[in-house]
Amino acid sequence: MTTALEELAIRLRDFAAARDWEQFHTPKNLAMALAGETGELLAELQWLTPEESAQVMRDPETAGRVRSELADVALYLIRLADVLGVDLLQAACAKLDENERRYDAETYRGSARKAPPLP
Amino acid sequence: MTTALEELAIRLRDFAAARDWEQFHTPKNLAMALAGETGELLAELQWLTPEESAQVMRDPETAGRVRSELADVALYLIRLADVLGVDLLQAACAKLDENERRYDAETYRGSARKAPPLP
Amino acid sequence: MTTALEELAIRLRDFAAARDWEQFHTPKNLAMALAGETGELLAELQWLTPEESAQVMRDPETAGRVRSELADVALYLIRLADVLGVDLLQAACAKLDENERRYDAETYRGSARKAPPLP
Amino acid sequence: MTTALEELAIRLRDFAAARDWEQFHTPKNLAMALAGETGELLAELQWLTPEESAQVMRDPETAGRVRSELADVALYLIRLADVLGVDLLQAACAKLDENERRYDAETYRGSARKAPPLP
Repeated sequence: MTTALEELAIRLRDFAAARDWEQFHTPKNLAMALAGETGELLAELQWLTPEESAQVMRDPETAGRVRSELADVALYLIRLADVLGVDLLQAACAKLDENERRYDAETYRGSARKAPPLP
Repeated sequence: MTTALEELAIRLRDFAAARDWEQFHTPKNLAMALAGETGELLAELQWLTPEESAQVMRDPETAGRVRSELADVALYLIRLADVLGVDLLQAACAKLDENERRYDAETYRGSARKAPPLP
Repeated sequence: MTTALEELAIRLRDFAAARDWEQFHTPKNLAMALAGETGELLAELQWLTPEESAQVMRDPETAGRVRSELADVALYLIRLADVLGVDLLQAACAKLDENERRYDAETYRGSARKAPPLP
Repeated sequence: MTTALEELAIRLRDFAAARDWEQFHTPKNLAMALAGETGELLAELQWLTPEESAQVMRDPETAGRVRSELADVALYLIRLADVLGVDLLQAACAKLDENERRYDAETYRGSARKAPPLP
Protein backbone atom coordinates (compact mmCIF):
# COMPACT_ATOMS: atom_id res chain seq x y z
CA MET A 1 0.00 0.00 0.00
CA THR A 2 1.45 3.36 -1.02
CA THR A 3 1.34 6.24 1.41
CA ALA A 4 0.29 9.76 0.32
CA LEU A 5 3.93 10.79 0.67
CA GLU A 6 5.13 7.99 -1.62
CA GLU A 7 2.50 8.96 -4.17
CA LEU A 8 3.79 12.54 -4.10
CA ALA A 9 7.39 11.33 -4.55
CA ILE A 10 6.27 9.32 -7.59
CA ARG A 11 4.39 12.30 -9.04
CA LEU A 12 7.55 14.43 -8.62
CA ARG A 13 9.59 11.71 -10.35
CA ASP A 14 7.18 11.75 -13.30
CA PHE A 15 7.09 15.56 -13.28
CA ALA A 16 10.90 15.71 -13.59
CA ALA A 17 11.05 12.89 -16.17
CA ALA A 18 8.39 14.49 -18.41
CA ARG A 19 10.48 17.69 -18.56
CA ASP A 20 13.87 15.98 -18.74
CA TRP A 21 14.75 17.70 -15.48
CA GLU A 22 16.40 14.69 -13.75
CA GLN A 23 19.70 16.16 -15.01
CA PHE A 24 19.13 19.16 -12.70
CA HIS A 25 17.89 17.12 -9.75
CA THR A 26 21.20 16.16 -8.15
CA PRO A 27 21.17 16.07 -4.32
CA LYS A 28 23.47 19.13 -4.34
CA ASN A 29 21.11 21.17 -6.56
CA LEU A 30 17.97 20.04 -4.75
CA ALA A 31 19.49 20.90 -1.36
CA MET A 32 20.22 24.41 -2.68
CA ALA A 33 16.63 24.69 -3.97
CA LEU A 34 15.34 23.50 -0.59
CA ALA A 35 17.42 26.19 1.13
CA GLY A 36 16.23 28.82 -1.36
CA GLU A 37 12.57 28.01 -0.61
CA THR A 38 13.27 27.96 3.13
CA GLY A 39 14.70 31.45 2.69
CA GLU A 40 11.44 32.60 1.07
CA LEU A 41 9.54 31.16 4.05
CA LEU A 42 11.79 33.09 6.46
CA ALA A 43 11.16 36.28 4.46
CA GLU A 44 7.43 35.95 5.20
CA LEU A 45 8.10 35.91 8.96
CA GLN A 46 11.28 37.97 9.43
CA TRP A 47 9.72 41.28 10.50
CA LEU A 48 6.93 39.77 12.59
CA THR A 49 7.12 39.34 16.36
CA PRO A 50 6.83 35.70 17.49
CA GLU A 51 3.28 36.59 18.60
CA GLU A 52 2.39 38.06 15.19
CA SER A 53 3.90 35.01 13.51
CA ALA A 54 1.45 32.83 15.48
CA GLN A 55 -1.42 34.80 13.90
CA VAL A 56 0.01 34.79 10.38
CA MET A 57 -2.67 32.47 8.94
CA ARG A 58 -5.45 34.89 9.89
CA ASP A 59 -4.74 37.15 6.93
CA PRO A 60 -5.87 35.22 3.82
CA GLU A 61 -3.26 36.79 1.53
CA THR A 62 -0.30 36.11 3.85
CA ALA A 63 -1.73 32.68 4.67
CA GLY A 64 -1.72 31.83 0.96
CA ARG A 65 1.91 32.85 0.58
CA VAL A 66 2.98 30.94 3.72
CA ARG A 67 1.09 27.81 2.58
CA SER A 68 2.73 28.12 -0.83
CA GLU A 69 6.24 28.41 0.66
CA LEU A 70 5.63 25.46 3.00
CA ALA A 71 4.51 23.47 -0.04
CA ASP A 72 7.66 24.39 -1.99
CA VAL A 73 9.86 23.33 0.93
CA ALA A 74 7.91 20.05 1.27
CA LEU A 75 8.14 19.29 -2.49
CA TYR A 76 11.90 19.80 -2.63
CA LEU A 77 12.43 17.85 0.60
CA ILE A 78 10.35 14.91 -0.71
CA ARG A 79 12.14 15.04 -4.07
CA LEU A 80 15.58 15.23 -2.42
CA ALA A 81 14.85 12.29 -0.11
CA ASP A 82 13.54 10.28 -3.10
CA VAL A 83 16.65 11.02 -5.19
CA LEU A 84 18.84 9.98 -2.22
CA GLY A 85 16.77 6.83 -1.65
CA VAL A 86 15.92 7.91 1.90
CA ASP A 87 12.57 6.95 3.46
CA LEU A 88 11.76 10.38 4.87
CA LEU A 89 9.05 9.32 7.35
CA GLN A 90 11.11 6.39 8.61
CA ALA A 91 14.15 8.66 9.07
CA ALA A 92 12.03 11.29 10.83
CA CYS A 93 10.48 8.69 13.16
CA ALA A 94 13.90 7.27 14.00
CA LYS A 95 15.20 10.77 14.77
CA LEU A 96 12.21 11.56 16.97
CA ASP A 97 12.73 8.28 18.88
CA GLU A 98 16.33 9.38 19.42
CA ASN A 99 15.28 12.87 20.56
CA GLU A 100 12.77 11.41 23.02
CA ARG A 101 15.59 9.40 24.61
CA ARG A 102 18.08 12.27 24.41
CA TYR A 103 15.86 15.00 25.87
CA ASP A 104 14.07 13.38 28.76
CA ALA A 105 11.04 15.40 29.81
CA GLU A 106 12.23 15.99 33.38
CA THR A 107 15.67 17.41 32.61
CA TYR A 108 14.68 19.59 29.69
CA ARG A 109 11.30 20.86 30.85
CA GLY A 110 10.80 24.51 29.91
CA SER A 111 14.35 25.05 28.75
CA ALA A 112 15.48 25.63 25.19
CA ARG A 113 18.94 26.68 26.39
CA LYS A 114 19.74 23.12 27.43
CA ALA A 115 18.38 21.71 24.21
CA PRO A 116 19.63 23.77 21.27
CA PRO A 117 19.13 21.06 18.59
CA LEU A 118 15.43 20.30 18.93
CA PRO A 119 13.27 22.07 21.53
CA MET B 1 -7.93 7.30 9.39
CA THR B 2 -4.70 9.06 10.36
CA THR B 3 -1.81 9.16 7.92
CA ALA B 4 1.78 8.44 9.00
CA LEU B 5 2.48 12.17 8.63
CA GLU B 6 -0.41 13.11 10.92
CA GLU B 7 0.80 10.57 13.49
CA LEU B 8 4.24 12.19 13.40
CA ALA B 9 2.71 15.66 13.84
CA ILE B 10 0.82 14.38 16.89
CA ARG B 11 3.97 12.79 18.35
CA LEU B 12 5.79 16.13 17.90
CA ARG B 13 2.90 17.92 19.63
CA ASP B 14 3.16 15.54 22.59
CA PHE B 15 6.96 15.80 22.56
CA ALA B 16 6.76 19.59 22.86
CA ALA B 17 3.94 19.51 25.44
CA ALA B 18 5.77 17.00 27.68
CA ARG B 19 8.77 19.38 27.81
CA ASP B 20 6.75 22.60 28.00
CA TRP B 21 8.39 23.64 24.72
CA GLU B 22 5.25 24.98 22.99
CA GLN B 23 6.38 28.41 24.23
CA PHE B 24 9.43 28.12 21.93
CA HIS B 25 7.52 26.67 18.98
CA THR B 26 6.24 29.87 17.38
CA PRO B 27 6.15 29.82 13.55
CA LYS B 28 8.97 32.37 13.56
CA ASN B 29 11.24 30.25 15.76
CA LEU B 30 10.40 27.00 13.98
CA ALA B 31 11.11 28.58 10.57
CA MET B 32 14.53 29.62 11.89
CA ALA B 33 15.16 26.10 13.18
CA LEU B 34 14.07 24.68 9.81
CA ALA B 35 16.56 27.00 8.07
CA GLY B 36 19.28 26.07 10.55
CA GLU B 37 18.83 22.36 9.83
CA THR B 38 18.70 23.03 6.08
CA GLY B 39 22.04 24.78 6.49
CA GLU B 40 23.50 21.65 8.12
CA LEU B 41 22.24 19.61 5.16
CA LEU B 42 23.94 22.02 2.74
CA ALA B 43 27.18 21.71 4.72
CA GLU B 44 27.20 17.96 4.00
CA LEU B 45 27.08 18.61 0.23
CA GLN B 46 28.83 21.96 -0.24
CA TRP B 47 32.26 20.72 -1.33
CA LEU B 48 31.01 17.80 -3.42
CA THR B 49 30.55 17.95 -7.18
CA PRO B 50 26.94 17.31 -8.30
CA GLU B 51 28.14 13.85 -9.40
CA GLU B 52 29.72 13.13 -5.99
CA SER B 53 26.54 14.34 -4.30
CA ALA B 54 24.60 11.69 -6.26
CA GLN B 55 26.84 9.01 -4.67
CA VAL B 56 26.71 10.44 -1.16
CA MET B 57 24.67 7.57 0.31
CA ARG B 58 27.33 5.01 -0.65
CA ASP B 59 29.52 5.96 2.31
CA PRO B 60 27.73 4.66 5.43
CA GLU B 61 29.05 7.40 7.70
CA THR B 62 28.08 10.29 5.39
CA ALA B 63 24.80 8.54 4.59
CA GLY B 64 23.98 8.48 8.29
CA ARG B 65 24.64 12.20 8.66
CA VAL B 66 22.64 13.08 5.53
CA ARG B 67 19.70 10.90 6.68
CA SER B 68 19.86 12.56 10.09
CA GLU B 69 19.83 16.08 8.59
CA LEU B 70 16.93 15.19 6.25
CA ALA B 71 15.06 13.90 9.31
CA ASP B 72 15.68 17.13 11.24
CA VAL B 73 14.42 19.22 8.32
CA ALA B 74 11.34 16.97 8.00
CA LEU B 75 10.57 17.13 11.75
CA TYR B 76 10.72 20.93 11.87
CA LEU B 77 8.71 21.25 8.65
CA ILE B 78 5.99 18.92 9.99
CA ARG B 79 5.97 20.72 13.34
CA LEU B 80 5.82 24.16 11.68
CA ALA B 81 2.95 23.14 9.37
CA ASP B 82 1.10 21.68 12.37
CA VAL B 83 1.53 24.84 14.44
CA LEU B 84 0.29 26.91 11.48
CA GLY B 85 -2.65 24.55 10.93
CA VAL B 86 -1.52 23.78 7.38
CA ASP B 87 -2.16 20.35 5.85
CA LEU B 88 1.33 19.86 4.42
CA LEU B 89 0.50 17.07 1.96
CA GLN B 90 -2.60 18.84 0.68
CA ALA B 91 -0.63 22.08 0.22
CA ALA B 92 2.19 20.20 -1.55
CA CYS B 93 -0.27 18.40 -3.86
CA ALA B 94 -2.02 21.68 -4.72
CA LYS B 95 1.34 23.31 -5.48
CA LEU B 96 2.39 20.38 -7.68
CA ASP B 97 -0.91 20.60 -9.58
CA GLU B 98 -0.17 24.28 -10.12
CA ASN B 99 3.40 23.57 -11.27
CA GLU B 100 2.17 20.94 -13.73
CA ARG B 101 -0.09 23.55 -15.32
CA ARG B 102 2.54 26.30 -15.12
CA TYR B 103 5.44 24.33 -16.59
CA ASP B 104 3.97 22.39 -19.46
CA ALA B 105 6.28 19.57 -20.54
CA GLU B 106 6.72 20.80 -24.13
CA THR B 107 7.82 24.35 -23.37
CA TYR B 108 10.09 23.58 -20.43
CA ARG B 109 11.67 20.29 -21.60
CA GLY B 110 15.35 20.15 -20.69
CA SER B 111 15.56 23.74 -19.54
CA ALA B 112 16.02 24.95 -15.98
CA ARG B 113 16.75 28.48 -17.19
CA LYS B 114 13.15 28.99 -18.22
CA ALA B 115 11.86 27.55 -14.97
CA PRO B 116 13.82 28.97 -12.04
CA PRO B 117 11.20 28.23 -9.33
CA LEU B 118 10.79 24.48 -9.73
CA PRO B 119 12.77 22.56 -12.37
CA MET C 1 45.62 52.08 -1.41
CA THR C 2 44.10 48.76 -0.38
CA THR C 3 41.13 48.72 1.96
CA ALA C 4 40.95 46.33 4.93
CA LEU C 5 38.32 44.37 3.00
CA GLU C 6 40.58 43.99 -0.05
CA GLU C 7 43.42 42.85 2.21
CA LEU C 8 41.14 40.19 3.67
CA ALA C 9 40.09 39.04 0.17
CA ILE C 10 43.76 38.70 -0.76
CA ARG C 11 44.52 36.75 2.43
CA LEU C 12 41.63 34.39 1.61
CA ARG C 13 42.99 33.98 -1.94
CA ASP C 14 46.42 33.02 -0.55
CA PHE C 15 44.79 30.79 2.09
CA ALA C 16 42.96 28.84 -0.64
CA ALA C 17 45.97 28.73 -2.98
CA ALA C 18 48.33 27.44 -0.26
CA ARG C 19 45.94 24.50 0.36
CA ASP C 20 45.03 23.91 -3.30
CA TRP C 21 41.43 24.68 -2.36
CA GLU C 22 40.60 26.95 -5.35
CA GLN C 23 39.17 23.81 -6.94
CA PHE C 24 36.47 23.77 -4.22
CA HIS C 25 35.85 27.52 -4.29
CA THR C 26 33.35 27.74 -7.14
CA PRO C 27 30.60 30.36 -6.69
CA LYS C 28 28.11 27.51 -6.32
CA ASN C 29 30.06 25.82 -3.53
CA LEU C 30 30.90 29.08 -1.75
CA ALA C 31 27.24 30.17 -1.84
CA MET C 32 26.32 26.85 -0.19
CA ALA C 33 29.02 27.37 2.45
CA LEU C 34 27.74 30.92 3.03
CA ALA C 35 24.23 29.55 3.54
CA GLY C 36 25.53 26.82 5.84
CA GLU C 37 27.24 29.37 8.07
CA THR C 38 24.18 31.62 8.01
CA GLY C 39 22.23 28.60 9.25
CA GLU C 40 24.63 28.24 12.19
CA LEU C 41 24.08 31.91 13.02
CA LEU C 42 20.30 31.39 12.97
CA ALA C 43 20.70 28.41 15.31
CA GLU C 44 22.26 30.72 17.92
CA LEU C 45 19.19 32.97 17.89
CA GLN C 46 16.29 30.66 17.01
CA TRP C 47 14.87 30.05 20.50
CA LEU C 48 15.45 33.59 21.79
CA THR C 49 12.80 36.29 21.83
CA PRO C 50 13.71 39.36 19.76
CA GLU C 51 14.38 41.12 23.09
CA GLU C 52 16.70 38.33 24.30
CA SER C 53 18.47 38.38 20.92
CA ALA C 54 19.26 42.08 21.51
CA GLN C 55 21.08 41.09 24.73
CA VAL C 56 22.88 38.10 23.23
CA MET C 57 26.36 39.69 23.45
CA ARG C 58 26.08 40.10 27.23
CA ASP C 59 26.88 36.44 27.82
CA PRO C 60 30.60 36.03 26.96
CA GLU C 61 30.20 32.41 25.81
CA THR C 62 27.26 33.08 23.49
CA ALA C 63 28.92 36.32 22.34
CA GLY C 64 31.98 34.35 21.30
CA ARG C 65 29.90 31.90 19.26
CA VAL C 66 27.87 34.68 17.61
CA ARG C 67 31.04 36.64 16.76
CA SER C 68 32.57 33.45 15.32
CA GLU C 69 29.49 32.74 13.15
CA LEU C 70 29.38 36.36 11.92
CA ALA C 71 33.06 36.01 11.01
CA ASP C 72 32.42 32.77 9.06
CA VAL C 73 29.59 34.42 7.11
CA ALA C 74 31.79 37.45 6.39
CA LEU C 75 34.73 35.31 5.24
CA TYR C 76 32.63 33.28 2.79
CA LEU C 77 30.86 36.39 1.52
CA ILE C 78 34.17 38.18 0.90
CA ARG C 79 35.64 35.07 -0.75
CA LEU C 80 32.53 34.57 -2.93
CA ALA C 81 32.51 38.21 -4.07
CA ASP C 82 36.24 37.99 -4.84
CA VAL C 83 35.82 34.80 -6.89
CA LEU C 84 32.95 36.47 -8.81
CA GLY C 85 34.98 39.64 -9.32
CA VAL C 86 32.37 41.74 -7.51
CA ASP C 87 33.42 44.81 -5.50
CA LEU C 88 31.33 44.04 -2.43
CA LEU C 89 31.40 47.52 -0.84
CA GLN C 90 30.63 49.22 -4.16
CA ALA C 91 27.74 46.85 -4.80
CA ALA C 92 26.43 47.36 -1.25
CA CYS C 93 26.68 51.16 -1.54
CA ALA C 94 24.87 51.11 -4.90
CA LYS C 95 22.11 48.93 -3.42
CA LEU C 96 21.73 51.22 -0.41
CA ASP C 97 21.48 54.27 -2.74
CA GLU C 98 18.72 52.38 -4.56
CA ASN C 99 16.93 51.48 -1.32
CA GLU C 100 17.07 55.11 -0.14
CA ARG C 101 15.29 56.15 -3.34
CA ARG C 102 12.90 53.20 -3.26
CA TYR C 103 11.82 53.49 0.38
CA ASP C 104 11.35 57.20 0.97
CA ALA C 105 11.28 57.98 4.68
CA GLU C 106 7.78 59.52 4.65
CA THR C 107 5.93 56.66 2.98
CA TYR C 108 7.64 53.80 4.80
CA ARG C 109 8.04 55.29 8.28
CA GLY C 110 7.39 52.68 10.97
CA SER C 111 6.10 50.05 8.58
CA ALA C 112 7.84 46.83 7.66
CA ARG C 113 4.67 45.52 6.00
CA LYS C 114 5.06 47.98 3.14
CA ALA C 115 8.73 47.24 2.75
CA PRO C 116 9.35 43.49 2.97
CA PRO C 117 12.74 43.48 1.17
CA LEU C 118 14.74 45.85 3.38
CA PRO C 119 13.20 47.50 6.43
CA MET D 1 39.70 57.46 10.47
CA THR D 2 36.52 55.68 9.40
CA THR D 3 36.76 52.72 7.05
CA ALA D 4 34.38 52.32 4.09
CA LEU D 5 32.67 49.52 6.03
CA GLU D 6 32.10 51.74 9.08
CA GLU D 7 30.69 54.45 6.82
CA LEU D 8 28.25 51.92 5.38
CA ALA D 9 27.23 50.78 8.88
CA ILE D 10 26.55 54.42 9.80
CA ARG D 11 24.51 54.99 6.61
CA LEU D 12 22.43 51.87 7.47
CA ARG D 13 21.93 53.22 11.00
CA ASP D 14 20.64 56.52 9.59
CA PHE D 15 18.56 54.68 6.99
CA ALA D 16 16.80 52.68 9.72
CA ALA D 17 16.43 55.69 12.04
CA ALA D 18 14.91 57.88 9.32
CA ARG D 19 12.21 55.24 8.73
CA ASP D 20 11.73 54.31 12.40
CA TRP D 21 12.80 50.79 11.48
CA GLU D 22 15.15 50.18 14.45
CA GLN D 23 12.16 48.46 16.07
CA PHE D 24 12.37 45.76 13.37
CA HIS D 25 16.16 45.49 13.41
CA THR D 26 16.63 43.04 16.28
CA PRO D 27 19.49 40.56 15.81
CA LYS D 28 16.91 37.79 15.47
CA ASN D 29 15.03 39.57 12.67
CA LEU D 30 18.18 40.69 10.88
CA ALA D 31 19.61 37.17 10.98
CA MET D 32 16.39 35.92 9.35
CA ALA D 33 16.64 38.64 6.70
CA LEU D 34 20.28 37.72 6.10
CA ALA D 35 19.26 34.08 5.61
CA GLY D 36 16.41 35.11 3.31
CA GLU D 37 18.77 37.05 1.06
CA THR D 38 21.30 34.20 1.13
CA GLY D 39 18.48 31.97 -0.09
CA GLU D 40 17.87 34.32 -3.04
CA LEU D 41 21.58 34.12 -3.88
CA LEU D 42 21.41 30.30 -3.82
CA ALA D 43 18.40 30.42 -6.14
CA GLU D 44 20.53 32.18 -8.77
CA LEU D 45 23.07 29.33 -8.72
CA GLN D 46 21.04 26.23 -7.82
CA TRP D 47 20.57 24.76 -11.30
CA LEU D 48 24.01 25.67 -12.61
CA THR D 49 26.94 23.28 -12.66
CA PRO D 50 29.94 24.48 -10.61
CA GLU D 51 31.61 25.30 -13.95
CA GLU D 52 28.60 27.33 -15.14
CA SER D 53 28.52 29.11 -11.77
CA ALA D 54 32.11 30.24 -12.39
CA GLN D 55 30.94 31.95 -15.63
CA VAL D 56 27.81 33.46 -14.11
CA MET D 57 29.05 37.07 -14.35
CA ARG D 58 29.46 36.82 -18.14
CA ASP D 59 25.73 37.29 -18.70
CA PRO D 60 24.96 40.94 -17.87
CA GLU D 61 21.42 40.21 -16.70
CA THR D 62 22.37 37.35 -14.36
CA ALA D 63 25.46 39.30 -13.24
CA GLY D 64 23.21 42.17 -12.20
CA ARG D 65 20.97 39.88 -10.14
CA VAL D 66 23.94 38.14 -8.49
CA ARG D 67 25.60 41.49 -7.66
CA SER D 68 22.30 42.70 -6.21
CA GLU D 69 21.90 39.58 -4.03
CA LEU D 70 25.51 39.81 -2.81
CA ALA D 71 24.82 43.45 -1.92
CA ASP D 72 21.67 42.52 0.05
CA VAL D 73 23.58 39.87 2.00
CA ALA D 74 26.40 42.35 2.70
CA LEU D 75 23.99 45.08 3.85
CA TYR D 76 22.18 42.81 6.30
CA LEU D 77 25.46 41.34 7.58
CA ILE D 78 26.91 44.82 8.16
CA ARG D 79 23.70 45.98 9.84
CA LEU D 80 23.50 42.87 12.03
CA ALA D 81 27.13 43.19 13.14
CA ASP D 82 26.56 46.88 13.91
CA VAL D 83 23.43 46.15 15.97
CA LEU D 84 25.36 43.47 17.88
CA GLY D 85 28.33 45.80 18.38
CA VAL D 86 30.67 43.40 16.58
CA ASP D 87 33.62 44.72 14.56
CA LEU D 88 33.04 42.55 11.48
CA LEU D 89 36.48 42.94 9.88
CA GLN D 90 38.27 42.38 13.18
CA ALA D 91 36.18 39.25 13.87
CA ALA D 92 36.80 37.97 10.31
CA CYS D 93 40.56 38.57 10.60
CA ALA D 94 40.69 36.78 13.96
CA LYS D 95 38.77 33.83 12.50
CA LEU D 96 41.09 33.65 9.48
CA ASP D 97 44.13 33.69 11.80
CA GLU D 98 42.53 30.79 13.66
CA ASN D 99 41.80 28.90 10.42
CA GLU D 100 45.38 29.37 9.24
CA ARG D 101 46.61 27.70 12.44
CA ARG D 102 43.88 25.04 12.37
CA TYR D 103 44.26 23.98 8.74
CA ASP D 104 47.99 23.86 8.14
CA ALA D 105 48.77 23.85 4.41
CA GLU D 106 50.62 20.51 4.45
CA THR D 107 47.95 18.42 6.15
CA TYR D 108 44.94 19.84 4.35
CA ARG D 109 46.38 20.34 0.85
CA GLY D 110 43.82 19.47 -1.83
CA SER D 111 41.30 17.97 0.57
CA ALA D 112 37.98 19.48 1.52
CA ARG D 113 36.90 16.26 3.22
CA LYS D 114 39.32 16.79 6.07
CA ALA D 115 38.26 20.41 6.43
CA PRO D 116 34.46 20.68 6.31
CA PRO D 117 34.19 24.06 8.09
CA LEU D 118 36.33 26.28 5.85
CA PRO D 119 38.09 24.90 2.76
